[in-house]
Amino acid sequence: MTDQRSFESLLDDYLTYFKEHPINGTTELLYEPANYILSLGGKRVRPLLCLMGYRLFQDNTDTALPLAHALEVFHNFTLIHDDIIDQAPLRRGKETAHIRWNVNQAILTGDVMLVKAYELFTDLKTSDSNKIKLIRGFNQMADEVCQGQQLDWEFSSMPHVSESDYIEMIRLKTSVLLGFCLYAGAVLAGASDREAGILYEYGVLNGISFQIIDDILDAFGDADVGKQPGGDILENKKTILLIELLHRVEGEDVMAVNHLLVDDQIQSEQKVERMLQFYREYEIEAYARERADQFRHKAESLIQQLESVDTTQLKTFMAALHQRMK
Amino acid sequence: MTDQRSFESLLDDYLTYFKEHPINGTTELLYEPANYILSLGGKRVRPLLCLMGYRLFQDNTDTALPLAHALEVFHNFTLIHDDIIDQAPLRRGKETAHIRWNVNQAILTGDVMLVKAYELFTDLKTSDSNKIKLIRGFNQMADEVCQGQQLDWEFSSMPHVSESDYIEMIRLKTSVLLGFCLYAGAVLAGASDREAGILYEYGVLNGISFQIIDDILDAFGDADVGKQPGGDILENKKTILLIELLHRVEGEDVMAVNHLLVDDQIQSEQKVERMLQFYREYEIEAYARERADQFRHKAESLIQQLESVDTTQLKTFMAALHQRMK
Repeated sequence: MTDQRSFESLLDDYLTYFKEHPINGTTELLYEPANYILSLGGKRVRPLLCLMGYRLFQDNTDTALPLAHALEVFHNFTLIHDDIIDQAPLRRGKETAHIRWNVNQAILTGDVMLVKAYELFTDLKTSDSNKIKLIRGFNQMADEVCQGQQLDWEFSSMPHVSESDYIEMIRLKTSVLLGFCLYAGAVLAGASDREAGILYEYGVLNGISFQIIDDILDAFGDADVGKQPGGDILENKKTILLIELLHRVEGEDVMAVNHLLVDDQIQSEQKVERMLQFYREYEIEAYARERADQFRHKAESLIQQLESVDTTQLKTFMAALHQRMK
Repeated sequence: MTDQRSFESLLDDYLTYFKEHPINGTTELLYEPANYILSLGGKRVRPLLCLMGYRLFQDNTDTALPLAHALEVFHNFTLIHDDIIDQAPLRRGKETAHIRWNVNQAILTGDVMLVKAYELFTDLKTSDSNKIKLIRGFNQMADEVCQGQQLDWEFSSMPHVSESDYIEMIRLKTSVLLGFCLYAGAVLAGASDREAGILYEYGVLNGISFQIIDDILDAFGDADVGKQPGGDILENKKTILLIELLHRVEGEDVMAVNHLLVDDQIQSEQKVERMLQFYREYEIEAYARERADQFRHKAESLIQQLESVDTTQLKTFMAALHQRMK
């Protein structure tokens, strides 16, 4: 319970900072969509991870707030451009920026958000050498996130994707940012390279586990969220579920599954239902849960190596994230 | 002649570096459109300005090549996103990236190009404090370029724009990058803040002058380029020409000009021809040339303050750019 209250107090700290620091400049309309998308809410996982990474080594959260914000601004830059790319009309139940404004505005505001994230890095209260270290890491992470998006596209048109390629894609697309949030907070607080490196891997491994669970929820549904299951199935998305099914399927089912993937005539509901039958028959959900658990356990055993700091709060937070996602 | 050969040798240095340093990474297809747009050519004005800014204070151009390249990569990032925004099918006679690939690819590759520009900054061979100084300046410049694009959009739907607002828009949209190229080269070479500041302003003032001349060429044509005149007129673009015409026009012509701006029925050729008649009648070209010259002369008198360095080559280069554009 103490830890739970702590997350909330960290979240309060961040939200207070957030409200007092809108993205702005002389040309107000440029920044309006940035503040709009940032205001849509969410769990603020990335800034919280950054603050927790920092607080493993330092108390005064204030210094880490601009860094936490830089990572949330970066994340929202990717959302604003991803929503254009995915032609998504809604985000968190509200209009996406390119719908509320237009595609051109969403491109330009996204661009300036990336620049604003870098501005927050150069303004950090730390030594110039530490800033350069953080910006280097940020560059690499941002580059990798773009590579992850690219691989996701490439996989969609490939007949066969291996599980390891898939894991690498989700590592780049979604997990390195989570790892970097912990890493950056720790580096700002003066952690050693070894400590910051362990935290980075801990974040990445948990991120991969989260993404696998997302795949499971997309197929089998999430009663809490009330989300319609099967979006990935309808898109023939090469999730870990489909990859493992294609690996396990045998006999007559090989043809049947392949037919399901290429049949344009089949109705959506039928396609989802039949694919779920195959997933059940070949025990794919259990396999995917096992893989998610493996990554999670690997993360947990890794963080044991951080003996000199108290990681209880961080582990409780990750467990809560896993819980909420199941 | 010596100076002329020097530009070419600097350009050779840059192009050699350029060929040996394609943008790359594991996910090759992500970077392909970046290398494509970078390879389309152009005068390479920005890297050359950076190298010249550097060589005012240091000889060994090698150190400045990655910085020059960062600025060319940044410029090409803006081109790849601008071409989407403008729905431009061609750039330098070749397909634009969003046509050759697709809009989503052009958005993503543009994003990673901005990150790659920052990577080149963090890898510079200079002190960490100098890197932070350069990255701060780069942040500000990039932010301003986005603001310039935003203002350009806003002006298009405003009934009246003042000349000073227009000058501020072109300063942000196109000129601050030219100023920053000189500034960054000088800072990397260890110039004082005063020296680097003068070079920045020198670049900005020349940039404004170039843009005004571009407006004139768009209206009155450029025999060398063989470009069809009148694009801005057809779009009712608030160039310095139209702004000054609206300021000068009187009597019956007020109605006639306003009619020309709102008449949807008029044929393109007629609209251009009639607007050009008004420009001639009110001596708008001469006025615009005078304004361009004023900014250029202001730049020239400013750079006289750099007494301890030899700015002959830089001034010759700027004169050549003015010459080619007239």
